[in-house]
Amino acid sequence: MSLAKKLDAAATDASLAGRFAALRAQSTAMVADLSAEDCNLQAIADTSPAKWHLAHTSWFFEAFVLEPYAAGYLPVDPRYNVLFNSYYNGIGEQFPRAQRGLLSRPTLDEVLDYRQQVDAAVLELLAETDHLGSAEIAARVELGLHHEAQHQELLLTDIKYNLFQNPLFPAYRPLDELPPAAEALPLTYIEYAGGKVELGAAGSGFALDNFAFDNERPRHKALLTPFRLANRLVTNAEFLEFIEAGGYREPQHWLSDGWAEVRQHNWTQPLYWGRIDGQWLEYTLNGLQPLDPAAPVSHVSYFEAQAYAAWAGARLPTEAEWESVAAAGPLTGNFLDTGSLHPRAAQADAAVAGETPLQLFGDCWEWTQSAYLPYPGFRAPDGAIGEYNGKFMSGQMVLRGGSAMSRAFHVRATYRNFFYPRDRWQCTGIRLASDPVTSDN
Amino acid sequence: MSLAKKLDAAATDASLAGRFAALRAQSTAMVADLSAEDCNLQAIADTSPAKWHLAHTSWFFEAFVLEPYAAGYLPVDPRYNVLFNSYYNGIGEQFPRAQRGLLSRPTLDEVLDYRQQVDAAVLELLAETDHLGSAEIAARVELGLHHEAQHQELLLTDIKYNLFQNPLFPAYRPLDELPPAAEALPLTYIEYAGGKVELGAAGSGFALDNFAFDNERPRHKALLTPFRLANRLVTNAEFLEFIEAGGYREPQHWLSDGWAEVRQHNWTQPLYWGRIDGQWLEYTLNGLQPLDPAAPVSHVSYFEAQAYAAWAGARLPTEAEWESVAAAGPLTGNFLDTGSLHPRAAQADAAVAGETPLQLFGDCWEWTQSAYLPYPGFRAPDGAIGEYNGKFMSGQMVLRGGSAMSRAFHVRATYRNFFYPRDRWQCTGIRLASDPVTSDN
Amino acid sequence: MSLAKKLDAAATDASLAGRFAALRAQSTAMVADLSAEDCNLQAIADTSPAKWHLAHTSWFFEAFVLEPYAAGYLPVDPRYNVLFNSYYNGIGEQFPRAQRGLLSRPTLDEVLDYRQQVDAAVLELLAETDHLGSAEIAARVELGLHHEAQHQELLLTDIKYNLFQNPLFPAYRPLDELPPAAEALPLTYIEYAGGKVELGAAGSGFALDNFAFDNERPRHKALLTPFRLANRLVTNAEFLEFIEAGGYREPQHWLSDGWAEVRQHNWTQPLYWGRIDGQWLEYTLNGLQPLDPAAPVSHVSYFEAQAYAAWAGARLPTEAEWESVAAAGPLTGNFLDTGSLHPRAAQADAAVAGETPLQLFGDCWEWTQSAYLPYPGFRAPDGAIGEYNGKFMSGQMVLRGGSAMSRAFHVRATYRNFFYPRDRWQCTGIRLASDPVTSDN
Amino acid sequence: MSLAKKLDAAATDASLAGRFAALRAQSTAMVADLSAEDCNLQAIADTSPAKWHLAHTSWFFEAFVLEPYAAGYLPVDPRYNVLFNSYYNGIGEQFPRAQRGLLSRPTLDEVLDYRQQVDAAVLELLAETDHLGSAEIAARVELGLHHEAQHQELLLTDIKYNLFQNPLFPAYRPLDELPPAAEALPLTYIEYAGGKVELGAAGSGFALDNFAFDNERPRHKALLTPFRLANRLVTNAEFLEFIEAGGYREPQHWLSDGWAEVRQHNWTQPLYWGRIDGQWLEYTLNGLQPLDPAAPVSHVSYFEAQAYAAWAGARLPTEAEWESVAAAGPLTGNFLDTGSLHPRAAQADAAVAGETPLQLFGDCWEWTQSAYLPYPGFRAPDGAIGEYNGKFMSGQMVLRGGSAMSRAFHVRATYRNFFYPRDRWQCTGIRLASDPVTSDN
Repeated sequence: MSLAKKLDAAATDASLAGRFAALRAQSTAMVADLSAEDCNLQAIADTSPAKWHLAHTSWFFEAFVLEPYAAGYLPVDPRYNVLFNSYYNGIGEQFPRAQRGLLSRPTLDEVLDYRQQVDAAVLELLAETDHLGSAEIAARVELGLHHEAQHQELLLTDIKYNLFQNPLFPAYRPLDELPPAAEALPLTYIEYAGGKVELGAAGSGFALDNFAFDNERPRHKALLTPFRLANRLVTNAEFLEFIEAGGYREPQHWLSDGWAEVRQHNWTQPLYWGRIDGQWLEYTLNGLQPLDPAAPVSHVSYFEAQAYAAWAGARLPTEAEWESVAAAGPLTGNFLDTGSLHPRAAQADAAVAGETPLQLFGDCWEWTQSAYLPYPGFRAPDGAIGEYNGKFMSGQMVLRGGSAMSRAFHVRATYRNFFYPRDRWQCTGIRLASDPVTSDN
Repeated sequence: MSLAKKLDAAATDASLAGRFAALRAQSTAMVADLSAEDCNLQAIADTSPAKWHLAHTSWFFEAFVLEPYAAGYLPVDPRYNVLFNSYYNGIGEQFPRAQRGLLSRPTLDEVLDYRQQVDAAVLELLAETDHLGSAEIAARVELGLHHEAQHQELLLTDIKYNLFQNPLFPAYRPLDELPPAAEALPLTYIEYAGGKVELGAAGSGFALDNFAFDNERPRHKALLTPFRLANRLVTNAEFLEFIEAGGYREPQHWLSDGWAEVRQHNWTQPLYWGRIDGQWLEYTLNGLQPLDPAAPVSHVSYFEAQAYAAWAGARLPTEAEWESVAAAGPLTGNFLDTGSLHPRAAQADAAVAGETPLQLFGDCWEWTQSAYLPYPGFRAPDGAIGEYNGKFMSGQMVLRGGSAMSRAFHVRATYRNFFYPRDRWQCTGIRLASDPVTSDN
Repeated sequence: MSLAKKLDAAATDASLAGRFAALRAQSTAMVADLSAEDCNLQAIADTSPAKWHLAHTSWFFEAFVLEPYAAGYLPVDPRYNVLFNSYYNGIGEQFPRAQRGLLSRPTLDEVLDYRQQVDAAVLELLAETDHLGSAEIAARVELGLHHEAQHQELLLTDIKYNLFQNPLFPAYRPLDELPPAAEALPLTYIEYAGGKVELGAAGSGFALDNFAFDNERPRHKALLTPFRLANRLVTNAEFLEFIEAGGYREPQHWLSDGWAEVRQHNWTQPLYWGRIDGQWLEYTLNGLQPLDPAAPVSHVSYFEAQAYAAWAGARLPTEAEWESVAAAGPLTGNFLDTGSLHPRAAQADAAVAGETPLQLFGDCWEWTQSAYLPYPGFRAPDGAIGEYNGKFMSGQMVLRGGSAMSRAFHVRATYRNFFYPRDRWQCTGIRLASDPVTSDN
Repeated sequence: MSLAKKLDAAATDASLAGRFAALRAQSTAMVADLSAEDCNLQAIADTSPAKWHLAHTSWFFEAFVLEPYAAGYLPVDPRYNVLFNSYYNGIGEQFPRAQRGLLSRPTLDEVLDYRQQVDAAVLELLAETDHLGSAEIAARVELGLHHEAQHQELLLTDIKYNLFQNPLFPAYRPLDELPPAAEALPLTYIEYAGGKVELGAAGSGFALDNFAFDNERPRHKALLTPFRLANRLVTNAEFLEFIEAGGYREPQHWLSDGWAEVRQHNWTQPLYWGRIDGQWLEYTLNGLQPLDPAAPVSHVSYFEAQAYAAWAGARLPTEAEWESVAAAGPLTGNFLDTGSLHPRAAQADAAVAGETPLQLFGDCWEWTQSAYLPYPGFRAPDGAIGEYNGKFMSGQMVLRGGSAMSRAFHVRATYRNFFYPRDRWQCTGIRLASDPVTSDN
């Protein structure tokens, strides 16, 4: 049986090997419509080339699964250990992040070949270890799948930013026809009593049956004062009101560091918005599109989210508030798996409208007003793998809920994403919260 | 009675007017040994000239006390409203912070004269308002005193940094003789049970009898897991071990952003340390001195504090942990009022050693691992005065306890200081904390 | 007859159309061994992608030949007028130079197609205008050919720099075997009497039969004092002596601005040199190679050339000195047409050795100590074409003689190349000169 | 006789000692009306503090006269050898130029005392050496006087720039009343035949009786084509026409590097111009003044001078053209010695108007289109003193004729000043030149 057929076969079952083959094939499929030049673009240090993502995720399996566990495994090219190591100092030196777009070699074809060789070796290892029942290998592969999913999302957010630099505004995936316009639901707030809640993921390690990252642990208790949460994300139309009211010109809404960003970069609107001949447009993975008023505003920084909330007389939720509500589920939403590649207007049947917050999952990552810090009792795993999450615990804010570019399987109510408050190239949006109105205030 | 005599008279009593006159005179006295050139130095945007501090604190009383409350008051020079406004957008434009050292005019003499005129006007207003009993004026003056105390500390930390740029290493205050060397107390940890605690300042507004800043409010409850707190600050000798063990060369101890700072700025030691002919020296406000092994390490960034803690197998405390312990008092320590101008080795009588943490107040501001964020229910005051604290709530870390450059009267257990994790020019040190040893971990 | 066949046919004759077709085909052939990713690389603003060079030279014919002269010509894509305009403000806005590497679209294939369409249109126009005898069109096409030749050289120097960023050190053209090593000729000086000389190109405009750029005109007289010129370029072995004598560590040899560059960029050797395990290597278009001691040192800045000359007790020639000697010909040398792609050791038969300077043409552009300034009576042509040369007359130095990456046909004794004194990515070398030894000095 | 009296006595005679004492006293007098803070200002690396100039010129006499020639001389403070060495690598390390404004110590008073001690030592040495007839000492002192004069000019241009940063626009020397307005002479061109000319200073070394800098030597011949020179400098009114015609918005007038400066720094007018309520003002050493239409435009960069000339259909003169005309004298003009501190409108009696160019000396340094390069046969002196001029021969343009801030005694027809084409803080203006109108052009 040929390698390609083996991979296909593996991709059809729900075993770890099957899920591995399927997800890896999805990553490769994501660049099917891109040219080799497209796949090598890097506009800023943040936005790595698509080719690099394809290579790095393969290196991850080499470095953390094959090298330690596959007896006699020889790396495809030992030099890739420098080129495609992202930030693991415990493994060795890294090629400078900001220069990944200068790596024309290996070519896209060579990287695709690298992927195939790694895939074959991992599947072979899994086939062997099924007999041996090695839990540690399985756990590492499971981690690698979640890592792969993270990079699928980054591949999309990065290629979006990189293609956007071209004044031809090329589409990642051209659209046959616009989806039908939707009406926005009225914005309402839902009240929550707070009190003692439990947060974070139970268990420890990268358990197969209950996967969570180290930064979601340990599970712990917290006290919440009563709060209110908006029933949906802030829409483009609502954010446009902020712009038209002078929001980007008035310092009183902004954090001090946010106002400095506004002035330094001349921010006047969300990252992908533009106005041509009086009409507002938005650059999407489907190319330039008219701005959809009912869709959630996306690609705003924490600073913009906070300023909008302040202007609207509200605030952003804390991650504890968000999680205490989201834990009730259901874990469904407009994820990458829907193929929309973009946030959509909230939809509700009459039964739940106004009682359950919508869009908690999918559409846009939701900025919280919580800094990304360790939970009480947090400990990073030993070794290089311990660099995965813990070392980023300064200067960043927590985001929750996944986006239209996130794979459904790797989003959870306890999932903590984190970016700098100035970052805008992720698919990030705004959920409002507020304190209950009290008589004496 | 001459103005100078009036000011002297006012400075001798404990009334608000008396405290005002005394504190304002202290500020002026702080530059008595400096030249006019010294007082105009600004090495980096952070470190304003001493002259600017003297002017800005006067402008603060003009803008927030005299202009709104003193009928018919004419500002000493209306152009000072731009030159000496620090960051209050609600009041108007500001002269760029990084260029304050370019303001040779007004001269130091003119600024000292400005101070006298403002002092006279405030005292006159207070004399009148004693009759009228205006609580709001008194509250604003009280706020102005705490503001003055903050700038006394900044004046010292800034002049220290500014004079340090000169290869002649001039002393702010030359020292007649070195204080006697002390022995360091052994480092031990004290156990705390955690549980439900109350944090923050009660009340609201800038109350005269229970002053607190807006960011310390509202008082609220929190849940703490059990923790352990070191009995004293980390000493120079202990930090030297970290250096000699390669601490500044090994990325595994550092946060990712911290390691980037280390490499970008070639950090190899705390800000004011140097080594000449094999001997470690420390620049202090008394000039270059041999490094005192038993004294607390100071002028370290959050990144260095965190890396040291990780290397030592510990962590930094949260602000909630710190406050829950410090609230028990007593509120004493090596403050600016002792005249030492520098942290000193911890001293304990046998009775309390090992049972009560020492140096919680004074000596060094203690980095916590808590980001500077709003307390649940926080609201900034209306108007320009609301810009005092709230707009800085992103990207900074909380520090607690005051330092050898802080006035005793304006430090409290609930006091939240905040700086960026890279900042080193404040008198900042390290208190270790850790989680209790558990059987299953 | 198909377009491809027509182009082939045209390329075989010596007519303007024939030379056009041949040179254009050479440009395209230069990327035959590169991947699409290779062709899109841009490491710094100076080093444009190979794809951009292929497109820009085509746009040049569109903008300066087809648009004004081909009746009814419709541009292949009007948006290319922004994307591929280099610096002609008279034509319109330009896509920012430093971001050319972000243009993944049009793809390489689309650009090659663009070339074919432009070629066909130009050939058609030339076929028509042969009948009409339009001198202006022919002159513009001739200018376009010289422009094309300039960009062939830039394509090579740019791809060399861009590929060099990759730690795999990919070769532009892998080498089957090393050329045999040569001995270096002894360095001698040849004496010249100076006196009144004539410099620059006669004629005006872009004449077909005596092509010269505007900056080579008008022909004019100058007075030269007696001088001496080295018989060959400085070799790698000689430059290595400078390095080993501490040349890069001693400020006394350097111009002040040069020394600043050395310190800012930590220069310790020519751009493409490296040392591995004690052996000196040089990156070339054939990949990493052992340093050839007899070959001319190349890829040095003016600052390095000047410092070397000062260290060697000599100086660089003026452009007038150089031209007065080079005008005697012959105009032969190691040009791009030899296929060597790299400077080679000087070779001389006994007859001329020591009497005629070698390597005046080809191998390396020779830095002169003349700033790039207008000749007396210089006037730039009217219109956008006048931006070709004149507007760069500040801050740059003149280089003479062409290099191993220059097409032979477009180098002349009067040719003035110009780069900034810090530039190193061109194939630039060192010819020494000196003043005659006088008895009283 | 006291030191002060001795200095006074020395200052009254025309001997070298007398001239030394007088000029040194003038330098000190130049800061008489400035505060200590004023004297420590440094807004950019280029504009050193007045105090630094006073110290550096004293160090120059210490390093180049007293240390080598005064037996047993002990430096006033050996640390000044680092603090006040400007750029002489041959002498040792230098305190970074950009940080001179951070040297609050030594204070202004200490620097004035330093000057007195150096003055006394030099006068003592001169008194001794008069007997010994040491030509070398006299030559070094003479060089020191010209160096002192250069720094008197820099002190003024620097303090002007430094005070200008203050929004209060303090005057260096307040003005009692405005000088009466003058009419501008009509602009005409005077024709010159060119031909063979002799340029540069004869002799060698720093001869007492015929002082010239090394860069003015050797005297040499050159060939000039016929040229025309404007009869006076370009006026403010003329330059205003350029502005109002859109000169700063149209790239076609500018050199490429000049246009980059315009865009990067948003240049819209000369350095010290401003418009308030529709009226054009100019900041001068006498404070903000209405713009004088007939006075020469000043504080323009080479780029602005060149763009103005191109817009006006003219060009800038070469230094050879300028010198061939200026050599005819007379060497008079509006220098620092007039006390005007600012360029004034050209004045001519009927006899010479239109026949002799006015303002060749004084008022404004005149940008030439000649790069600052070595004359044929140029050699820098040996030792550290050789760093005086030669190492700056790249990237700068030659200016001629002195300005209203230059001491008359140290300006000559052969004097070559040099600055970068972007520099504007010197008192620089525009003299137009052009090529004769020819019948065939």
